[in-house]
Amino acid sequence: MKLGTLRNGGLDGTLVVVSRDLARAVTVPEIAETLQAALDDWGNAAAKLELVYRRLEEGGVESAFVFDPAQAAAPLPRAYQWLDGSAYLRHHALLRQARGEPMPAEVETLPLMYQGGSAPMLGPRDDITIHDDAWDADLEAELAVVTGAVPAGESATAAAARIALFLLVNDVTLRSLVADELARGFGFLHSKPPTAFAPVAVTQDELEPAWHDGRIHLRVSCEVNGTRLGRPDAGQGMRFGFPELIAHAARTRPLPAGTIIGSGPVSNDAPDAGCCSISERRALETIETGKPQTPYLRSGDRLRIEVRNADGRSVFGAIEQQVVPYYSLP
Amino acid sequence: MKLGTLRNGGLDGTLVVVSRDLARAVTVPEIAETLQAALDDWGNAAAKLELVYRRLEEGGVESAFVFDPAQAAAPLPRAYQWLDGSAYLRHHALLRQARGEPMPAEVETLPLMYQGGSAPMLGPRDDITIHDDAWDADLEAELAVVTGAVPAGESATAAAARIALFLLVNDVTLRSLVADELARGFGFLHSKPPTAFAPVAVTQDELEPAWHDGRIHLRVSCEVNGTRLGRPDAGQGMRFGFPELIAHAARTRPLPAGTIIGSGPVSNDAPDAGCCSISERRALETIETGKPQTPYLRSGDRLRIEVRNADGRSVFGAIEQQVVPYYSLP
Repeated sequence: MKLGTLRNGGLDGTLVVVSRDLARAVTVPEIAETLQAALDDWGNAAAKLELVYRRLEEGGVESAFVFDPAQAAAPLPRAYQWLDGSAYLRHHALLRQARGEPMPAEVETLPLMYQGGSAPMLGPRDDITIHDDAWDADLEAELAVVTGAVPAGESATAAAARIALFLLVNDVTLRSLVADELARGFGFLHSKPPTAFAPVAVTQDELEPAWHDGRIHLRVSCEVNGTRLGRPDAGQGMRFGFPELIAHAARTRPLPAGTIIGSGPVSNDAPDAGCCSISERRALETIETGKPQTPYLRSGDRLRIEVRNADGRSVFGAIEQQVVPYYSLP
Repeated sequence: MKLGTLRNGGLDGTLVVVSRDLARAVTVPEIAETLQAALDDWGNAAAKLELVYRRLEEGGVESAFVFDPAQAAAPLPRAYQWLDGSAYLRHHALLRQARGEPMPAEVETLPLMYQGGSAPMLGPRDDITIHDDAWDADLEAELAVVTGAVPAGESATAAAARIALFLLVNDVTLRSLVADELARGFGFLHSKPPTAFAPVAVTQDELEPAWHDGRIHLRVSCEVNGTRLGRPDAGQGMRFGFPELIAHAARTRPLPAGTIIGSGPVSNDAPDAGCCSISERRALETIETGKPQTPYLRSGDRLRIEVRNADGRSVFGAIEQQVVPYYSLP
């Protein structure tokens, strides 16, 4: 099934079940008002929501209305946890190579993962609002899972069954603020403003047969100002699958229901795959020609991220954002 | 006023107004079921909660009952954001000196702050549950603020008015896992298991006259197995006040209501002040004698953290935790 959250003036929005073609939706107040509430009681809520989804697909829901992605918030407008891995090692290796830095220790055996801000999250059409173009805003197109409650010390084998939903993510990054934060060792704070999400979260069956080996074997399409940046296969080059990322996250602590765990920007070692972030293209340009050519995002620039299945249908709906300056620093 | 959260079998507990002497409490379902709900509507809820608090202090609430800290959850059992500063630079400098490492760049002008896991949070009597004593569990006694909604780019001057509540915190740390995570640059994940909180959150007037200059001028008392570890003055040595920490946190993004921002472990440059973490005592021992003597926390060890005001009354109630092994890793 597909689930979305419509803006309602509040902080958590209204949960809706969305049709497979993303055309229609229905609210489900008798099951859960919000996606977080459904996740808190997922064992009961999931089956009930699936029944509504089936009826919606069969055309049997009179109260269904047109689903407008412009009215969609992030599926979880404020989440309790956002942990982002960097599982496509090629992305990481290229950026380090371009900067002349070695890879961190144990990257092949121990996932890189940072704790990001989980509230507020941006909806699929929300502007990326920045103070200064010199912050070098960038997209990072990636996939993510939403977990149920996960006990501390969960194994990767058991973690697969903790996945409730899948998401498409733009982990917005302010590139010029990254290096200093990396050097200080305390992780990313200023360099990671709010993260954006495609209109709907989907269950595993919506991905079949592209979900296997703990990876989503579909291409992630990225455009900047209408020009393709990349279209790599998310099933290739992901060193750690989602169950391994969940187990890594839970190694010393339990995870609450509604934890979002990201893959890091998708990256393929294939000449025609392109990139899911401008930083990676610039790294390739630097390695090839000695300097980057592609500019980072500037005010007015637009991006688009989407995943289509084998039938050509949009799985999560599209992320379509514009960069806008809107606040002054003191 | 003082506000607490009692366990009720759910994930968010029940908000209670607690008397100044921490002896009595009353639920306030007509105002808000949970502390997060009150914070989401703080402009309205705070005044109503204050009225209940005044009536409770005057003995005019018939439904009041005994407040049992053993039944208290963290004031925010799951929060949307936990950002921890490291504003007592002496703590940081001692640990680096003992390890023979330089201080990170710009520590005097730019706060160190990491994004921590914000759900679940531990209550004041919850066990610190770890897999392995070799993880070297440690306390970090610190103070924190809970903010209302803060816009991106907020100034430190304006940020002071965004403080809703104050908290006493044990930022539990697994010392043997810190160095590798610092070296990888992605921040703390495994080394920071769930954080613990004293029974009540308090408003600014509960601290008077000890709240000024953006700092809480009270001593933080720490004991391990009944022996004093330290009792430094939180008003001394805090390089950045709470308003500056809030402004730092909000520099590139808005903060949701209920964001918790910590000071980092309190540390004074005074021979009798002692320490708020075992790591700092061990650093002092290493600098003085060449090697640490005080062991980290082991299974069965107990700790106690408390802050008393000038009248000798406990401001937040005490954090009293035991270290317990309870889960197996795969």
